[in-house]
Parts: sequence; structure tokens; C-alpha cells
Amino acid sequence: MPANKRNYHHGQLRETLVAAALDLIRSEGPQGFTLRAVARRAGVSHAAPYRHFADKNALLAFVAEEGFRRLAAFMRARAGAGGTPLARLHAIGVAYVLFARENPAHFRVMFAAEIEEKAAYPELMAAGDAAYQVLVKQVEACQAEGILKTGGREELSLAAWSLVHGLAMLMIDGQLRCADQVPDEAALVERVVALFYAGLMEAA
Amino acid sequence: MPANKRNYHHGQLRETLVAAALDLIRSEGPQGFTLRAVARRAGVSHAAPYRHFADKNALLAFVAEEGFRRLAAFMRARAGAGGTPLARLHAIGVAYVLFARENPAHFRVMFAAEIEEKAAYPELMAAGDAAYQVLVKQVEACQAEGILKTGGREELSLAAWSLVHGLAMLMIDGQLRCADQVPDEAALVERVVALFYAGLMEAA
Repeated sequence: MPANKRNYHHGQLRETLVAAALDLIRSEGPQGFTLRAVARRAGVSHAAPYRHFADKNALLAFVAEEGFRRLAAFMRARAGAGGTPLARLHAIGVAYVLFARENPAHFRVMFAAEIEEKAAYPELMAAGDAAYQVLVKQVEACQAEGILKTGGREELSLAAWSLVHGLAMLMIDGQLRCADQVPDEAALVERVVALFYAGLMEAA
Repeated sequence: MPANKRNYHHGQLRETLVAAALDLIRSEGPQGFTLRAVARRAGVSHAAPYRHFADKNALLAFVAEEGFRRLAAFMRARAGAGGTPLARLHAIGVAYVLFARENPAHFRVMFAAEIEEKAAYPELMAAGDAAYQVLVKQVEACQAEGILKTGGREELSLAAWSLVHGLAMLMIDGQLRCADQVPDEAALVERVVALFYAGLMEAA
């Protein structure tokens, strides 16, 4: 019982710290705050964050890791289980862009060059890989059914990732200034993603 | 003569300040320095930057603007004048990624969310548009020759931009960790870009 209780509290504290860090990242940027400020925002003692994180870099790495887990879950949920393999692949690509649009601060941290020594955080690398594998597995499923005939699995996956990553970054960085010409940004995302896969399917 | 001389010196000062700012961006990041530090690095008086820039934000906007001009020139140079329209479009896409890889700090500033009120810098917006138009015009040229048959001009251009922008960002953010599996990153860029256009050409 005491052990369970302690673990439960630890888990809660970590969630609270992640939420507080995301608040601060949204308002100050990933460089604009200290671990002490995270503790203050979370309403815990200055020492509390150190129960989970060696330093601010470790907290950012965990926030990024949590982001990749949420992204993977969101892509899987949007892909669903029904429909054609290509429809699911399309849904995964669209979900990637929507996740970035809905969580721009979190998305930025996931790809932040500011996190030092990412390779020192194996859970972060694993969570990033797991999210990427949602895409790769669906590319494989399409290839297995003869739907995507152009390109090898690796370069096709990288091209698909690049397309949605670029679209997501351009959107959250405010580069698509034709906002008035784009009354429905979500529809634009659908069209751009569809264009990519339509092109890569061989004409029947 | 005096007017010419003053303009010449002004131009020189501006170039010197841009170079000093890029040095500091490389070492400290776009948030990690002041206009005063730029002056110090450039070896000019603290007051000198104010001859050209109201504040640091204005300097960053000019650095970004200069980046878009260099990117446009680089893409045009790599595209050349010969070859097929599709070969030139391919070369433009590859050039975009290579520019980012060779000038990561500059590329980041060009798309930095840190530059406040970008719309207040019409020259920056114009330089960004001009760079994008290098791509759009070449998409048009391909469509005119019946090479790219899938998609409208706008969404095709945006998809092509997204692909190379995403690949560039993933590369400079160190996301392609399969570096040992990718002995020749430049060849990978060629293949991913080729994959996109190969897919969008209708099978002959």
C-alpha cells in the first residue's frame, strides 16, 4: 500500500510538472523559464521537480517524450481500424498536421534543437521511433496490398513524414499567410496530403 | 559623391551587422544576444546598429529577408537554364534542402516564430514571396508542358514546399538519426524529392 501510494503520487507530480512546463513553454518559449518557475507554477516545492528530473533539460526531454506518445495515440485514433489501408495512411498524415496545429508549443518542444544530448534520453528516442512506426507500418500495409507502388519503404516513409512535418511547421510558424484565401485550413491539409498519395498510387 | 560614399558605407555596415548577427545566432541562438552584442561583435559603436535597425527584432527581420534572397538566388543557380522543366523543378527542391543544411542558423531565423510582427516588415514578406515564386513558376512551367497532371497549381506548390521544408527541418533538427544508414545524405535528398515528382507525373 505505501509503495503504491508513493508511486501514484509520483505519477501525479510528474503529470502536474509536465502541464506546468507546457504552460510556461506556451507563454515564455522553451528557453524562457527555469525548473524553479515550473515548481512555482505547479504549486509544489522548489525541490519537488528533482524527484523526477535531474535538470530542466531532462524535464524538456520528458515533455517531448510525452508529446510523441500523445501524437502516436492521436494518429492511431484518427486512423481507426476500418477503411482501406490508404484511407488510414491518409488519416495518419492529416492527424500529424492537426496535432501540430492544436498543440504548437508541445510540437515545437518535440523537435526542439534546444534539448541537449537527446541521445541521452532513450525513452525519448523510443517514443519518437514509436510514433514514426505508426506511419511506417501503414506504408507497409499499403505496399503489401499493392497500393503504393513507387519507392522503397524507407524513403517513402521519410517523404510522407517530410510532407506532413513541413506543412505542420509552415502552419504553426505562420508562413501560410494566405489565410483569407484559405477559409478552411483543415480542408487544405486534407487536399495536400491526398495529393501526395494520389500521386504515388499507380493509375489503375 | 558624398551621398554615394555615405550609401556605400551604410551598405557595408549593414552587411557587417548581418554577418555578426549570424555568428551570434549560430553560437547563442536567436534569443541569446542583444543589439549591443552585435555591435561589439561587428567592431562598431553601440549606436551604429541604430543607423539601420530600430531594434533587434528589425535586425532579425532583415537577416531573414537576406536569407530568402540568398535562398532564391541559390535555387535559381541550381535550377540553371537547361534541362527539362521537371529537372529544374527537382533541382529547386533539392537546392532548398541543401541551403538549409548548409545554413541551418540562417534558415531557422527565416522561419523563426521569434520575429515579432513579421507583417510589419514588407521587404521580408516580399523576399519570402519571391523565393516561393521560384518554386511556383517552375510548377507552372511543368504544368504548361503537361508534366505534372495531378493537383492545382497552389496546392501542388504548397505540397512541394511542405515536402522540402519538412525534410530540411528534420535534417537540421537532427531527427534523421539513422545517419550511419545514410552514408550519403545528399543522395537521400535527391531520392526523396524525386519520389515526390515521380509520383505526380502520370505514367506515360
